[in-house]
Amino acid sequence: MRTVIGVMGSGRSLLADAEEVASRLGRLIAEEGWVLLNGGRDCGVMDASARGAQEAGGLVIGVLPGRSTNGASPHLDVAIRTGMGDGRNYVNALSSDVLVALPGGAGTLTEVAFALLAQRTVVALGWEPQPPLDEYVESGMLVRASTPEEAIAAVRDALAKEEAR
Amino acid sequence: MRTVIGVMGSGRSLLADAEEVASRLGRLIAEEGWVLLNGGRDCGVMDASARGAQEAGGLVIGVLPGRSTNGASPHLDVAIRTGMGDGRNYVNALSSDVLVALPGGAGTLTEVAFALLAQRTVVALGWEPQPPLDEYVESGMLVRASTPEEAIAAVRDALAKEEAR
Amino acid sequence: MRTVIGVMGSGRSLLADAEEVASRLGRLIAEEGWVLLNGGRDCGVMDASARGAQEAGGLVIGVLPGRSTNGASPHLDVAIRTGMGDGRNYVNALSSDVLVALPGGAGTLTEVAFALLAQRTVVALGWEPQPPLDEYVESGMLVRASTPEEAIAAVRDALAKEEAR
Amino acid sequence: MRTVIGVMGSGRSLLADAEEVASRLGRLIAEEGWVLLNGGRDCGVMDASARGAQEAGGLVIGVLPGRSTNGASPHLDVAIRTGMGDGRNYVNALSSDVLVALPGGAGTLTEVAFALLAQRTVVALGWEPQPPLDEYVESGMLVRASTPEEAIAAVRDALAKEEAR
Repeated sequence: MRTVIGVMGSGRSLLADAEEVASRLGRLIAEEGWVLLNGGRDCGVMDASARGAQEAGGLVIGVLPGRSTNGASPHLDVAIRTGMGDGRNYVNALSSDVLVALPGGAGTLTEVAFALLAQRTVVALGWEPQPPLDEYVESGMLVRASTPEEAIAAVRDALAKEEAR
Repeated sequence: MRTVIGVMGSGRSLLADAEEVASRLGRLIAEEGWVLLNGGRDCGVMDASARGAQEAGGLVIGVLPGRSTNGASPHLDVAIRTGMGDGRNYVNALSSDVLVALPGGAGTLTEVAFALLAQRTVVALGWEPQPPLDEYVESGMLVRASTPEEAIAAVRDALAKEEAR
Repeated sequence: MRTVIGVMGSGRSLLADAEEVASRLGRLIAEEGWVLLNGGRDCGVMDASARGAQEAGGLVIGVLPGRSTNGASPHLDVAIRTGMGDGRNYVNALSSDVLVALPGGAGTLTEVAFALLAQRTVVALGWEPQPPLDEYVESGMLVRASTPEEAIAAVRDALAKEEAR
Repeated sequence: MRTVIGVMGSGRSLLADAEEVASRLGRLIAEEGWVLLNGGRDCGVMDASARGAQEAGGLVIGVLPGRSTNGASPHLDVAIRTGMGDGRNYVNALSSDVLVALPGGAGTLTEVAFALLAQRTVVALGWEPQPPLDEYVESGMLVRASTPEEAIAAVRDALAKEEAR
């Protein structure tokens, strides 16, 4: 079974900098040989990270809110269609071995929280965890990173720890 | 159809003060003639608010994570069994006309975030919204209250606004 | 906690006979003091059974496919909004202590099958179980009835058996 | 985006013949360049079809009932972890462009019924559709096949029809 790294973050239009960070993160995940999983839509961090991973030859799984592929990013290899709306964020979190979260809104917050509840390590890339999530920083389940490269290193550490268990 | 008020908050053991706040909130909701809906388990805010509402003769719906009623609060009238684990938090949020959130952890956070995404008003009772949720304070979707009585007043306002739409 | 009886069946327009059977079943369930739970929409067996139960003063819970109460039967007391589309049929099945299924299509079939998988007794009212469900007839989990009165008797038996366990 | 073919069927131990049919079907799906999606567990049709597809170099996605990969087939490439129990059958159906169903029990029936409700073509391989599903045979949404090779031909037809729409 292959390692699956979730990439979550804003579904809104991204500024050029944020766009570059998301697509670079996608590319680095693909270069590690990991599968990239995200919310699958044709916007924001979902589309940019899928594009980066696909351009680097990686496998991209999009877990869509709808019943069909309408509104899906063109950079997916496989579209999981849940028909559950935002409820699919629960599936995104559980299906990720480790989750990297870029800055986002309420939706991203649900994915981070569900991942932590399910004891997945979450890497916060470019944002500062707030209460009540900050308690997971102390326990090492929620890790901060400032660049995609730092995020990849944090994912590697988390995977190594999990294997050692 | 009856008005449904969701009550969310910590699933851990509560200090006497927090216990009293949760059960008083439940009682006040029942006295307004509203249905109380929560996560249905036999602990924390779920159990205390259910007890308060039931003692006042209210109707209490618990939306459980499991397939059976194991671990359910004894103060429920109806147990919705979802079999979806924490994913049932999505159903909790959507099924509430207005949601009152007491202090809680990652699970409570998913319920608050899902409610806001679905354009339900959320009353934050006894805690301060943090980024990225603070933007909903500005738009009036996320309202602060310090006491159960204030929370009830905020719920009444939100219901009146919705009816006026 | 109150006993919850699920009522499933066709969502299409009903002939006068089928309409009468569904609403009579709803009334009888209410008269037993049981909660009636169904798929909550404003059509077919859902609407007719809700109406029958409500007219007899019973409590009616509708588990809706959507995120809002659009398209809900006017005869519900509480609307559980799942946002999961037909996936809510799983919640319908699990939330019923016993399920009574009237003639229906593919949707009704999913509810019957999920209920049996979760070891709920199912009463087939007015239809003949086909393979692969017929094996549950032999084990006593799937019981046939020809009238609402027979269905109520079968529900009573099933509840008594469960209590004796 | 790649074409996804769902393979559903019994989760029980298979006789040698049924095992061979399931694994041959998996191999043929992989040889067509399609992704195979199934319920992901280490038993019955799920395991046999995954093995067949993986041995032929295909991509295999398992949509698991649990929160973790416990009990997963060793022949999956990617494990989607839903945490929804049998409710994940809804996701299986929606995520398949076309679904091939081998003989199975109540669980398989939910997948066939959900697929038809979502207007996916279903190929019944080695079993005879019963009421109320037989009406979908007349409309051409439910197609019978006697061998894996016939099933593949039926899938090809269904995909061609969908593209022509």
